[in-house]
Amino acid sequence: MRTFDGDETSSSADQLTLRRTNLGLVLRLLRDRGPRSRAKLAAELGMTRSAVSTLVGELEARGLVRIGDLERGAVGRPGTSVQLDGHAVAGLGAEVNVNHVSTMALDLTGEVVSEHKLALDAHAFTVEAVLDRLADLVRQTTADLTRRGIDPIGLTVGVAGLVDRERGWLTFGPNLDWQDVPVHELLRDRLGEAYPITVENEGNLAALAEATPGDRDRQDVLVLFGEVGVGGGIVAEGRPLRGRQGYAGEFGHMIVEPQGRRCGCGRVGCWETVVGLRALLDLAADPDDQVRDPAMAIDERLAELNRRASLGDTRTLDALAQVGGWLGLGAAMLANALNPAAIVLSGYFAAVGEHMRPAIESRLRDGVLAPDAGGTRVELSTLGFTAAVRGGAGLSLDRVFADPTSVERRPVAAGATR
Amino acid sequence: MRTFDGDETSSSADQLTLRRTNLGLVLRLLRDRGPRSRAKLAAELGMTRSAVSTLVGELEARGLVRIGDLERGAVGRPGTSVQLDGHAVAGLGAEVNVNHVSTMALDLTGEVVSEHKLALDAHAFTVEAVLDRLADLVRQTTADLTRRGIDPIGLTVGVAGLVDRERGWLTFGPNLDWQDVPVHELLRDRLGEAYPITVENEGNLAALAEATPGDRDRQDVLVLFGEVGVGGGIVAEGRPLRGRQGYAGEFGHMIVEPQGRRCGCGRVGCWETVVGLRALLDLAADPDDQVRDPAMAIDERLAELNRRASLGDTRTLDALAQVGGWLGLGAAMLANALNPAAIVLSGYFAAVGEHMRPAIESRLRDGVLAPDAGGTRVELSTLGFTAAVRGGAGLSLDRVFADPTSVERRPVAAGATR
Repeated sequence: MRTFDGDETSSSADQLTLRRTNLGLVLRLLRDRGPRSRAKLAAELGMTRSAVSTLVGELEARGLVRIGDLERGAVGRPGTSVQLDGHAVAGLGAEVNVNHVSTMALDLTGEVVSEHKLALDAHAFTVEAVLDRLADLVRQTTADLTRRGIDPIGLTVGVAGLVDRERGWLTFGPNLDWQDVPVHELLRDRLGEAYPITVENEGNLAALAEATPGDRDRQDVLVLFGEVGVGGGIVAEGRPLRGRQGYAGEFGHMIVEPQGRRCGCGRVGCWETVVGLRALLDLAADPDDQVRDPAMAIDERLAELNRRASLGDTRTLDALAQVGGWLGLGAAMLANALNPAAIVLSGYFAAVGEHMRPAIESRLRDGVLAPDAGGTRVELSTLGFTAAVRGGAGLSLDRVFADPTSVERRPVAAGATR
Repeated sequence: MRTFDGDETSSSADQLTLRRTNLGLVLRLLRDRGPRSRAKLAAELGMTRSAVSTLVGELEARGLVRIGDLERGAVGRPGTSVQLDGHAVAGLGAEVNVNHVSTMALDLTGEVVSEHKLALDAHAFTVEAVLDRLADLVRQTTADLTRRGIDPIGLTVGVAGLVDRERGWLTFGPNLDWQDVPVHELLRDRLGEAYPITVENEGNLAALAEATPGDRDRQDVLVLFGEVGVGGGIVAEGRPLRGRQGYAGEFGHMIVEPQGRRCGCGRVGCWETVVGLRALLDLAADPDDQVRDPAMAIDERLAELNRRASLGDTRTLDALAQVGGWLGLGAAMLANALNPAAIVLSGYFAAVGEHMRPAIESRLRDGVLAPDAGGTRVELSTLGFTAAVRGGAGLSLDRVFADPTSVERRPVAAGATR
């Protein structure tokens, strides 16, 4: 048996671990704080400038960073600026929703490279047919990338419902009416093994999309996502809070009115019975009103509600205030528990949020023990229905930021300065 | 100006960063997975065996690990076992409560080295006098350590209320009736600069005490702490969830009964109005009953309630079932939001928890969307009123696990084998 002292593999494994760790540190710092000189990177990371120079060179060889244009002539000297380069890899996000399937690709700098969406009524198709449609969109997305010489680094698929992340199954999706669907395996069959595929709850992904890396005010975020159902996600210190089995974020089924209405889930008084889209529409209009006409697109119906509210229509304003009050009540409970920097209203909540905001903020101030609602701000998502695919694409990119060596060195193109 | 290539400080700063990182990796692995051979450590960490041997030697020189006794003759060879050594350093925890001040010291292996408690009515003293008493206990605790040759590595002080961690202030402590108290500064004045002092919310510390490092079933824990007030803490993936301003865990002020009773905080229908100690006692006994006699110790009153419940007393059982039902309702809300592995009942909830458990678990099953309550178990804390000091001492030790070089190398004692 060999002794420790006689081991002469010259610790290449340790060198690899160190290089990975340090490459990731540099890359994340550029993401979180923006372009900067190597001298500044060295000071911030407590490394020597020569070490940083080597690391930057390796990241550049993998196409992950580039040297600032202004001082291109002085590459390697202090004062030149290093920044993320989006030309090498992109992360893919995809979503299976009741009303659509969609995809997005984000490059390393967070720019949208490709985006596809197909409206469909998931209930009208088999599981396999829905995933066929999704796989088609993913292929269109990777084709977009190929045309631009960008490699897909991974795909994260958001689904509405409870997800077993280890197996990549949707175990329970009441709105999709799916149960125990091996999403990972079915997509792998359709898309092959070229990049890793991960399955996530769409609420977690939507929450991640709202958390901006490096921004302290966007590291602890609670996202409330309103459609007919109400869900969302929690990001704590920049990381998704998934819970032990990945079921965190099912806010819609907090029971807030034990003597109230029956919920789609079978329980009585769930939060979504008083803040879900149906609750608002029932309060705001009679059954024969156009805003309750399922044949009309939901965006248009919400726009009509906003129009009425802006004109001062009492019934509409009362309905928004009442739903806003319930929204604030639940938001205050969650803020007492989590003290997020921001509660981000997403989905339909964002669409009519300006008119609900006074009621929400009033309840939040009243209902949170900490002074000034613990500093929690109410914000409206600007991501619309792309939040989940954006969060998924971002999560796919995390693999690169954690270990930049997961991206191959690029062949050197003769005379290429890009 | 020096160029990068000409920088010849031989990257000692990077070496230091690497050594710190790797020493921490080894130490945490020993904490989380127990004693093991250097060969096994090397395999698990993806390092060479010679590198691991060097790291273990350095940890040993700092008194943080020791080599297993059985194969003492073969130190340095594969097969010998490395384990944490508790003889060098200890973390200190302290608590300022309405009814007592207390301290605890834990060594690196998690063993209690010293424990002190002083009952006092915080309302009867000035802030300075209470902190004088606490400082006395801390001095007794460090004296215990000194006698055993153990260095205190840091002190974490838990206080009941809202904490500004950056400044170390208790900003709002309604039960203590303290406001804007510079706890850190006042203790620093009394205890000097020998080790860092940190101020934390006691609920966060109690929650940390229930989260066992390395145990997957104890990484995502929600602690509900019941006294007259109700608070607690959240641990997610082994880390305390504090929120943006450190105000997370104020579960007692979730409004669950908007038409209900007025709370001590001034709001109506807070959860603690239906699950706090007073609610239970009011339901369980008439005003002249001994269990409602404030002159009698609370432990004895709770023991009497347990006795009555065990004898089948209907009023007592009904009271426990009613409070348990409300406890389960709120627990289910939090479980929908957080999907913890365990909800740990602490404080008075633990004392009478066995009789409340059926009602709690029934509401939890009914109220959580995920199947089988998302796997969330209801458990009773066994830490009693020491949870906060234990969590504080553990948090103080985190500094060593994050950076073992924060502990000095020890002078070599001639012939010492301990």
